[in-house]
Amino acid sequence: MAALQKAALIVGAGDATGGAIARRFAREGFATCVTRRSLDKLQPLVAQIEADGGRAHAFACDARKEEEVVALVEQIESTIGPIEVMVFNIGANVPESILNETARKYFKVWEMACFSGFLNGREVAKRMVAREIPQGGHRGTIIFTGATASLRGAANFGAFSGAKMALRALAQSMARELGPQGIHVAHVVVDGAIDTEFIRSNFPERYALKESDGILNPDHIADTYWMLHSQPRDAWTHEIDLRPWSEKF
Amino acid sequence: MAALQKAALIVGAGDATGGAIARRFAREGFATCVTRRSLDKLQPLVAQIEADGGRAHAFACDARKEEEVVALVEQIESTIGPIEVMVFNIGANVPESILNETARKYFKVWEMACFSGFLNGREVAKRMVAREIPQGGHRGTIIFTGATASLRGAANFGAFSGAKMALRALAQSMARELGPQGIHVAHVVVDGAIDTEFIRSNFPERYALKESDGILNPDHIADTYWMLHSQPRDAWTHEIDLRPWSEKF
Amino acid sequence: MAALQKAALIVGAGDATGGAIARRFAREGFATCVTRRSLDKLQPLVAQIEADGGRAHAFACDARKEEEVVALVEQIESTIGPIEVMVFNIGANVPESILNETARKYFKVWEMACFSGFLNGREVAKRMVAREIPQGGHRGTIIFTGATASLRGAANFGAFSGAKMALRALAQSMARELGPQGIHVAHVVVDGAIDTEFIRSNFPERYALKESDGILNPDHIADTYWMLHSQPRDAWTHEIDLRPWSEKF
Amino acid sequence: MAALQKAALIVGAGDATGGAIARRFAREGFATCVTRRSLDKLQPLVAQIEADGGRAHAFACDARKEEEVVALVEQIESTIGPIEVMVFNIGANVPESILNETARKYFKVWEMACFSGFLNGREVAKRMVAREIPQGGHRGTIIFTGATASLRGAANFGAFSGAKMALRALAQSMARELGPQGIHVAHVVVDGAIDTEFIRSNFPERYALKESDGILNPDHIADTYWMLHSQPRDAWTHEIDLRPWSEKF
Repeated sequence: MAALQKAALIVGAGDATGGAIARRFAREGFATCVTRRSLDKLQPLVAQIEADGGRAHAFACDARKEEEVVALVEQIESTIGPIEVMVFNIGANVPESILNETARKYFKVWEMACFSGFLNGREVAKRMVAREIPQGGHRGTIIFTGATASLRGAANFGAFSGAKMALRALAQSMARELGPQGIHVAHVVVDGAIDTEFIRSNFPERYALKESDGILNPDHIADTYWMLHSQPRDAWTHEIDLRPWSEKF
Repeated sequence: MAALQKAALIVGAGDATGGAIARRFAREGFATCVTRRSLDKLQPLVAQIEADGGRAHAFACDARKEEEVVALVEQIESTIGPIEVMVFNIGANVPESILNETARKYFKVWEMACFSGFLNGREVAKRMVAREIPQGGHRGTIIFTGATASLRGAANFGAFSGAKMALRALAQSMARELGPQGIHVAHVVVDGAIDTEFIRSNFPERYALKESDGILNPDHIADTYWMLHSQPRDAWTHEIDLRPWSEKF
Repeated sequence: MAALQKAALIVGAGDATGGAIARRFAREGFATCVTRRSLDKLQPLVAQIEADGGRAHAFACDARKEEEVVALVEQIESTIGPIEVMVFNIGANVPESILNETARKYFKVWEMACFSGFLNGREVAKRMVAREIPQGGHRGTIIFTGATASLRGAANFGAFSGAKMALRALAQSMARELGPQGIHVAHVVVDGAIDTEFIRSNFPERYALKESDGILNPDHIADTYWMLHSQPRDAWTHEIDLRPWSEKF
Repeated sequence: MAALQKAALIVGAGDATGGAIARRFAREGFATCVTRRSLDKLQPLVAQIEADGGRAHAFACDARKEEEVVALVEQIESTIGPIEVMVFNIGANVPESILNETARKYFKVWEMACFSGFLNGREVAKRMVAREIPQGGHRGTIIFTGATASLRGAANFGAFSGAKMALRALAQSMARELGPQGIHVAHVVVDGAIDTEFIRSNFPERYALKESDGILNPDHIADTYWMLHSQPRDAWTHEIDLRPWSEKF
């Protein structure tokens, strides 16, 4: 049996941001564990990381199911290595008038974008606090991906903004409790369109801004996550925003 | 059959704040509809309002259940009168380390303090937008009760703060969408201990501050809700805070 | 010599908001002391208050000059009565690109909208803390008028937003220090156009919104200031916003 | 005459943060221009940068004097090189009760911590907007150093918090106006004690936290400033906070 390696868990390793973060941590030597609901969709990412000389492990996990999250964390910790970094990156927004919002969708948006964050954050934090604090170092890093909606509730964003503000509350609460215990908890407010297939297909005019760097490059977002993990413990960032130079805010 | 009256719906008409708000609107001539999960617990409030010459109707309603909320609003609108005011006042906080927080409790706190607010807010808003805007007036008022935790996530407040921040996001989103449609949506940040049986029993030292007005009188909170409903539409408040003079903030 | 009366000092008693606040407190029985730089411009306001049966005293005072503010407060306290309420209402915004903003104007905007607030607030607070706290009551109320720019720095608003955010910082700091000493310090965020001669002349399209209550009525703003002063000390508001129903925010 | 180099201007290059930032940019190849009121105090920093193989230029400049700031920027641009980075790092806090705060000190705190920032920011921005935007790049970076007081007005912090909130308003306003013109404007909230001679002498108990990384290392703050300048323009940060892991917030 191989010796355990330090692991990075990327919950919600989609084609854009999550995938870029996974590649970034793999490049830095982490055994990168990536999750989505479907294993199939993770294969190209794993293949890409391995082709680049990194190590990646794909897990099908419904991040909203406590038992699946508990099992996932147990499996990684016992077979791959201690989770030193966890990035929570799930969230989908479908704007809707409050008058037409369904209870089912309102619940699902929260369940995906917030409740999953709680489950994964708690499970990973439990493991981290049980470890020694390395001399001059810290026990681990937990990063939550936020959005403009994390800061204010715009019209038609009741569900998404509710989930994102709740996730930000979680990040703040965890940072205040776990920081002095050696766990770096950070929240990244991504404010602007990201270079994704979704934006390319659905918002072509927006996507055209790519030419002048008007949409976010996932690799650059990933650099920020790596920077956060690399910060020395006397100068930690809890919240940082990212937006294209031309973005109105 | 009696003519329909204007109704005020108080969701979460507990012994303190919710009850005081119900009494206040009853005193102003509203047919006040009060809800809790248990009908029994509402009887003293109804009796008190009626003894004061007001009109009150008690409803057992689990505010987290969509079908119950839909039925409640339908019943009030068809048998009592159009809901002109809705106050959402549910919320309970049991602080807990993120490491020990259970998925069940995290979910329940959100379900009670936020999801219920969405269900009741949406159902009432649907009715309000369907009515005429009175000349120089507005279609109705929807008020959400917030707390200190609505603004920041303190250590051990991950669940409660998450629910309260999400409720604030809902209030903001509804205000931005519905304000221009003549519905006044407001959010009240109550920052401090309230004069309740709970505080009296569990925090006697805190309760002793009552002598010097160091805890909030529910009747004074209720005055603020009435003030909000009474504001002319050229000068609406979306957010207001309330705290005792001696409260640290 | 007549017995001393309780006084209300309105610093910046212009034609709209400040004047309306002065009339409101006069109506409540206060000896209302109004200031502007020019005595002449105050005469119509004084005449109006007196015609309504109230008492008003006009003072020419450059609120940016420490010695004038000190003398003003001394004069009121010794010849009219103890200042129970102070409202600071000065502020003028002339948007400008940061590239063209002059040092002189940047300074003047701060001097008028913030430094004056400090001088008047401090002088009045010194008097208030020296008095007894009435049984169950409070020593006095100090209210600062804010604006949208108090919350964020929009493009071309560097000077005005700087002054307004600094004034908000002052209000917060004073509230935290003086609240427990029995002085109610509040900050009112007025978000929207007010029904003034300035708006009528310069923004006729905006002014036309008056017909549908789309601009703020100064008398309604004044009602809010009176409400703040009237709050019982167990339920004080530190910050409240006011905007027309149709205002985008 | 030597060819012009790209310059970095550090306004307020004190012994700790400002000095560290100057060293950092010198290490990256910038002709680093450092200012304080006294030239003498800058000599050790210049000597250190030169000993490390960097280039540094010291300027005595009272950052509150428009003519001195104008002349400084002109001199650097004409004799050293185009200012590609400006860091504003002046600010001193002496807490005081609002009741005892003098007008002179209230003014001076604002003049140093805010007005100087406006003067330097404007002068540098004027030069930057006049240059070409490099292909895929940006015209320059302007960074303002903030503090906890940039976010809220604590008791006894009326003057300092007023200046810091006003500076933050300036940063926001400049970012919104100048970002789309290719100038990256950022604001760094430093929340905690920094490893300075001042803390060592005056707060020895606090300083003792250094052993466990409980106070900020200026070199680590400087790394953040460099990171901000290095961000690609599709993913700019406007605001970031920095605090030691053990800091309460």
